[in-house]
Amino acid sequence: MYGKFFSKDTTSFMRSPVREIFKRVDLGSIYSFAGGYPSADTFPLEDIRRATDIVIQKYGAKAFQYGATQGVPELRQVLSERYGVPLERIQVTTSSQQGIDVCTRVLVDPGDVILTSNPSYLGALQSFCSYRAEVVGVSHEPSLDAFRKAYVEAIEAVRAAGKKLKFLYMIPDFQNPSGETLSLEERLVLVELAEKYDFLIVEDSPYRELRYEGSDVPTIYSLCPDRVLHLGSFSKILAPGFRIGWILGAPELLDMIYVCKQSLDLCPPIFDQYLAAELMGSGLLDANLVKSIALYKSKRDLLLSLLEEYMPEGVSWTHPEGGLFLFLTLPEGFDTIAFYDKALDAGVAYVAGSFFHVDRSMARNTMRMNFSFMTHQKITEGVKLLAGLIKSELK
Amino acid sequence: MYGKFFSKDTTSFMRSPVREIFKRVDLGSIYSFAGGYPSADTFPLEDIRRATDIVIQKYGAKAFQYGATQGVPELRQVLSERYGVPLERIQVTTSSQQGIDVCTRVLVDPGDVILTSNPSYLGALQSFCSYRAEVVGVSHEPSLDAFRKAYVEAIEAVRAAGKKLKFLYMIPDFQNPSGETLSLEERLVLVELAEKYDFLIVEDSPYRELRYEGSDVPTIYSLCPDRVLHLGSFSKILAPGFRIGWILGAPELLDMIYVCKQSLDLCPPIFDQYLAAELMGSGLLDANLVKSIALYKSKRDLLLSLLEEYMPEGVSWTHPEGGLFLFLTLPEGFDTIAFYDKALDAGVAYVAGSFFHVDRSMARNTMRMNFSFMTHQKITEGVKLLAGLIKSELK
Repeated sequence: MYGKFFSKDTTSFMRSPVREIFKRVDLGSIYSFAGGYPSADTFPLEDIRRATDIVIQKYGAKAFQYGATQGVPELRQVLSERYGVPLERIQVTTSSQQGIDVCTRVLVDPGDVILTSNPSYLGALQSFCSYRAEVVGVSHEPSLDAFRKAYVEAIEAVRAAGKKLKFLYMIPDFQNPSGETLSLEERLVLVELAEKYDFLIVEDSPYRELRYEGSDVPTIYSLCPDRVLHLGSFSKILAPGFRIGWILGAPELLDMIYVCKQSLDLCPPIFDQYLAAELMGSGLLDANLVKSIALYKSKRDLLLSLLEEYMPEGVSWTHPEGGLFLFLTLPEGFDTIAFYDKALDAGVAYVAGSFFHVDRSMARNTMRMNFSFMTHQKITEGVKLLAGLIKSELK
Repeated sequence: MYGKFFSKDTTSFMRSPVREIFKRVDLGSIYSFAGGYPSADTFPLEDIRRATDIVIQKYGAKAFQYGATQGVPELRQVLSERYGVPLERIQVTTSSQQGIDVCTRVLVDPGDVILTSNPSYLGALQSFCSYRAEVVGVSHEPSLDAFRKAYVEAIEAVRAAGKKLKFLYMIPDFQNPSGETLSLEERLVLVELAEKYDFLIVEDSPYRELRYEGSDVPTIYSLCPDRVLHLGSFSKILAPGFRIGWILGAPELLDMIYVCKQSLDLCPPIFDQYLAAELMGSGLLDANLVKSIALYKSKRDLLLSLLEEYMPEGVSWTHPEGGLFLFLTLPEGFDTIAFYDKALDAGVAYVAGSFFHVDRSMARNTMRMNFSFMTHQKITEGVKLLAGLIKSELK
């Protein structure tokens, strides 16, 4: 009945298979490698409770009134100090997902091209498709020359087709879903290409501060601050429920985003911004981050060793230096979409790797596995169960 | 430098003159009839503080995790009971402004027509323009026949031009900016026309529960629930800073909004939803609403009597039965946009009435006055100051 009323954009809306899983089963009742949920054990409930008292005492009614569209000054100040970025380059967003959405909204017309790594974050692909962008995925080639060549070819093809490449979307640290991190050299290649071919880069960086080994690589933003919109988030380092993220970028770009946000939601949640500012400014977030990193490192190590022990020959996986995910590749011909219901019936969930690809017929023998959400015990039992099911399937 | 990257939608973005005022002056330091801010005195700080403890104790980590895109079940349940609407007809939004934005996004293509009362809410006009809708404004005629005729003519003109009328946007209770309320007969006319000419109605209802005199008129939604999307909000009845609103509507419409919201922000702020549910479910919101209504009624009465006493002849204003605003009309030829800087220099702010009109050259002799934000004393001093300035100007 309502079909005739819907906008053309709606014909390109994608449903999140992950959220559909959430609707179907209670994640707590199964072994779930599916979501990207942080562990509830990392939420500093007692600190948050004390912070609510402090914020109410310190700011009173101001913490519940409308606030500035750019974000409350106190939070922007703390972000400015933490990340060494001037205030006029900081826009607070109502979740980092809104950061993706608003960047796409102000930059992309139907038919414009967005370049992304393949696989990539599902929520970003959903947003890009919802604006009827043409999304071009580039697979991650291991050598630097092949990496550059793959991007150059993709860009040249876009230009040859007479289309506009608006931006490259990239999660350089502990990518979702692959778990991989781009080297400094790879980042420099992307910046070089952005300048040569005149496009922007949207750098999505929610996991950056969750590093379990190795050394930080500079952000793409730090290498080229006028061409990069850098998206940050409290979701993985504090708690997702606050829905607070931020964008770093050139003032002229942020100004357009600011005007857009006036009609999107006027301003981000105020109380939550003050809580985030209080927890970050007082050092409680950093103290909690140390604990989160230790917890997640132990879970990652456990998952890696369990896969090594229980997965049959022919199965391989990435080794993430941080973040929440690794990507598992099964023997050619294994179909993780067809296998999914069987796994769920047996009580274990993952997300099929195809869903993260621009072309969903690709990579049907892959899956994303999350290691942040479950307890050590459930990770152990879950891997044993999943590996057993895979073995039976491969027979 | 970035112009070439921006989407076509951005050419239609409007800046909010109200938010630009906020950037320019500290509202606390002047007499401000400008914003639509609730009084800080209505925020039940002590109840909120206690509710934070209860929510953290009751829900623990769940209150800070990702939640369902439709909203947390506990809040939807409380809304369902309060408004007598089944769960599947309730979608929680991250602010009521997002409700306007997401309805427009899923319904409107560039060039589609949205019908609205003229004047209308600025944030809605901003959202409509940002999607390059064609907005047609209809002035409020006092007699029912003229009311119907004005809408029929506007609708027929849209059809004659071969354009698609997607929806009518209406704030039927204590309209922003006019303060006026639609009668039951007027609402029935709108429903009749929506059915006859096959369009939807977006009913924006943030002020409905702030009634200071007279009796409730049924919502348009209650008269025609399958053709109306009803927008509600905690902003004026609890606190805007939570950014929590809701949409009531047909499940098929809400399902499209749900998919859209997956890419907008995944889910509304969780802690804030639990706080709203706790305050609403425990009766604290209602108790606070009784106090808010008493406070606002006294401020409205004060403003009305001060206008009567101090405004020069030839100035008239609406008599709102509720809400936060009245609309003031100055003698023909008075230009409230030109006068604005003079008033602000003298320390008093309002919003020029033209800004609420689809055609901003209209109604240059009008202004919107808010009476919720300032104290009684500041309202009194502010009206005296403003009336004095107007008198000088009229000489």
